[in-house]
Amino acid sequence: MLQLYIQQLIEKIGKDKISQNKPVLMQHSKDESIHPAVEPDVVCFPECAGDVAEILKFACANLVPVTPFGAGSGLEGQAIPIQKGIVMNFERMNKIIEFSPEDMRVTVQAGVTRLQLNRLVNEYGLMFSVDPGADAMIGGMVATNASGTTSVRYGAMRDQLLDLEVMLADGTIIRTGSQARKSSSGYHLTGLFTGSEGTLGIITEVTLKLHGIPEYNMMARCTFNSLEDCARAAQTILQAEIPVLRMELIDAVSISMINHHSGEAFPEKHSLFFEFAGSKRAVEEEVALASELMHDLDCENWVAANDPIKMNGIWKARKDLNYAIAHQPETCEIGGDVCVPISRTPELVSFARTRMDQSGLKGAIWGHIGDGNFHTSVMYNPNVVGEFETAEQTSDAIVLKAIEVGGTCTGEHGVGLGKMKFQEVEHGEALEVMKRTKHMYDPKGILNPGKLFID
Amino acid sequence: MLQLYIQQLIEKIGKDKISQNKPVLMQHSKDESIHPAVEPDVVCFPECAGDVAEILKFACANLVPVTPFGAGSGLEGQAIPIQKGIVMNFERMNKIIEFSPEDMRVTVQAGVTRLQLNRLVNEYGLMFSVDPGADAMIGGMVATNASGTTSVRYGAMRDQLLDLEVMLADGTIIRTGSQARKSSSGYHLTGLFTGSEGTLGIITEVTLKLHGIPEYNMMARCTFNSLEDCARAAQTILQAEIPVLRMELIDAVSISMINHHSGEAFPEKHSLFFEFAGSKRAVEEEVALASELMHDLDCENWVAANDPIKMNGIWKARKDLNYAIAHQPETCEIGGDVCVPISRTPELVSFARTRMDQSGLKGAIWGHIGDGNFHTSVMYNPNVVGEFETAEQTSDAIVLKAIEVGGTCTGEHGVGLGKMKFQEVEHGEALEVMKRTKHMYDPKGILNPGKLFID
Repeated sequence: MLQLYIQQLIEKIGKDKISQNKPVLMQHSKDESIHPAVEPDVVCFPECAGDVAEILKFACANLVPVTPFGAGSGLEGQAIPIQKGIVMNFERMNKIIEFSPEDMRVTVQAGVTRLQLNRLVNEYGLMFSVDPGADAMIGGMVATNASGTTSVRYGAMRDQLLDLEVMLADGTIIRTGSQARKSSSGYHLTGLFTGSEGTLGIITEVTLKLHGIPEYNMMARCTFNSLEDCARAAQTILQAEIPVLRMELIDAVSISMINHHSGEAFPEKHSLFFEFAGSKRAVEEEVALASELMHDLDCENWVAANDPIKMNGIWKARKDLNYAIAHQPETCEIGGDVCVPISRTPELVSFARTRMDQSGLKGAIWGHIGDGNFHTSVMYNPNVVGEFETAEQTSDAIVLKAIEVGGTCTGEHGVGLGKMKFQEVEHGEALEVMKRTKHMYDPKGILNPGKLFID
Repeated sequence: MLQLYIQQLIEKIGKDKISQNKPVLMQHSKDESIHPAVEPDVVCFPECAGDVAEILKFACANLVPVTPFGAGSGLEGQAIPIQKGIVMNFERMNKIIEFSPEDMRVTVQAGVTRLQLNRLVNEYGLMFSVDPGADAMIGGMVATNASGTTSVRYGAMRDQLLDLEVMLADGTIIRTGSQARKSSSGYHLTGLFTGSEGTLGIITEVTLKLHGIPEYNMMARCTFNSLEDCARAAQTILQAEIPVLRMELIDAVSISMINHHSGEAFPEKHSLFFEFAGSKRAVEEEVALASELMHDLDCENWVAANDPIKMNGIWKARKDLNYAIAHQPETCEIGGDVCVPISRTPELVSFARTRMDQSGLKGAIWGHIGDGNFHTSVMYNPNVVGEFETAEQTSDAIVLKAIEVGGTCTGEHGVGLGKMKFQEVEHGEALEVMKRTKHMYDPKGILNPGKLFID
């Protein structure tokens, strides 16, 4: 039965676009989350929208699950084919379709990565602004409504989108927007597909807004005695409407891990990291104002710089953080991604720290404090009985607290498998509407089944 | 039959929330468009979400059409109850629910108007940024995804929204977002309801982002020899990333109408109007740069000012335009609202002017050139046989041209009745998905029936 369906698929799209090699299946069995790997039956490598349509029509007729796969950099299990079937890898759909520098707009296939895109548009003084860290594919970034360090200034993925080409479950191709910068025509399907994690349709093309590259950058760093002080300081920057390019928090525990991992000697206190960008004069004014505001709030260890080497030194701690966490010995982690109103961040980061300390486990807190979006990492030893459960309870308590104060269980990573359990408490009656939406778009349930909703 | 259903409705929500007075019915039979008036059977004035739910449950059970009505300032007939039934006027749902200055966020009932909101938040140094001209209700502005002169800087209504409370056709209440500034949790229903014009659900509460009031403003004006030159000049400003607060175009024909109407002597040439806002130093730099760029492009009549009286003089032409058009003797107009990629605006405004001239009718062109969104007014004498048809053909040709170059039939007014005929050519296969969406949310077809889609 299995071989038969794959044989039919080969006849549809050709042998060279399909793989059942064991290493390929393994590579497509997981993302960067802790969710268990599941190998698909087969991996397809479509080269054009027509291939995607053929695969979907086939999958629809034969009730085979289809899971889209980008760079595999997801953090919530979205790309894991938990019901097996077909994984669709977009790496061959990596063409720039249309680039209009004068409109600061570009249309790309879903498999273009963000660094690939920036290599092209940077030459024209333009940039694609969303920076989630990993070199994710644009299609995947749309699917999770990705964001990152620069979203405090430019917004999330959803804010960059003008148009999508989407393949529906039955192979119908639609376009959801236009090339104009705004529209009030028809239902806003662009917004609906963004963040739908491959459960409503497969994104094949994306039209994005671009931004000008600022001419001048400065970085700065300072420390505070408490997490609450850090959060309040970030709030002060926002209220002063200083258009920071980046504003990141790292807590003292994480800084100490970084020092240990990288052999650095950063002050082991709760720290804020800033990047400013714009015209030289504006940036210098902004840095002076930020320094004044931070010192008014009794910051310590303020350092600012504009030459590349010093700037790199200032941000090194932030850049080293992921490695430091990843290299804790005998350690797994449960990652968090809550986002709350800015005014509630002092309370939330403090709550998170207290719960981590109470758990007896090592925990790190950092993130995009300017959006109210912060990450938590609760670390456990998988070989010690009970540690996983303790870590999960701790992480869950932080998420529930975030929802309680008007926030969300995920600011940028998406729901995938990891945040399904919070959907009902966060969305209430709206969850039923979301389920009906899923059923309308995918009546046979072939599109990334088992994600977003607990059936 | 008619009286019976109204009697039942009175029992549900109370006599004082219902009117069948002739003047009230007449007042709710039209908006500010040219579409023919239709009186509803009855007008309801809900005072809380519970009232809205009662009305909807009743309407759903009895298959009575429900048309939401805000300030009546719509331009495409959205609020006209073309299938009669119930009109729901939100003027009594005008409460500010929650205001968090520190989060620059406010939650309001749908019937709060934008000036009412600004009167409150301005006192805290904050503002609600969307300015469509009219003192529209926030609920109506969400329903049409309104925008206006400041959207070049702050975006449209959709960009301001964090959360909506929406009443579904069966009276279920859902919330579509959260109070956090970003989220990747669940389907983005906020985006879907925004611009849905009351056809998917009734918006009862809105949570909005606010912005800081800039400390300093300057205005400027200049003229060019051709509309293409104006459009290119606007593009130059955007490419230089000057964060204009407003950037408006008015063509020479319209300026001449203004002079005639107001007794002014503005140079009767194609004109660009600018407003700059920010810190004094930044604004002065921006104005200097804009002046240099405009003079490089051979602008004439450049005037800039920062004192209130002179600023008012500079923008008076723009402010007088709507009156000037409205007061043309024996004249009706067909209004346009296309939005195209910035690079295509020279071609489009030139095409629009040529078609107007060819038609032999008087026509005006103006609008939010920084978004690629411009308005056309083709004027006709309703007492002259054939003029309406000529005006309609001219206006339609401009819309079709806009769609052809990748634009949209409506940048900010919405579809309503007036733009239904362009939905298929603009959205193609996606229109079918939109119709299915409508059917899913409103299976009995009671929500603002007869709008958006030609059945």
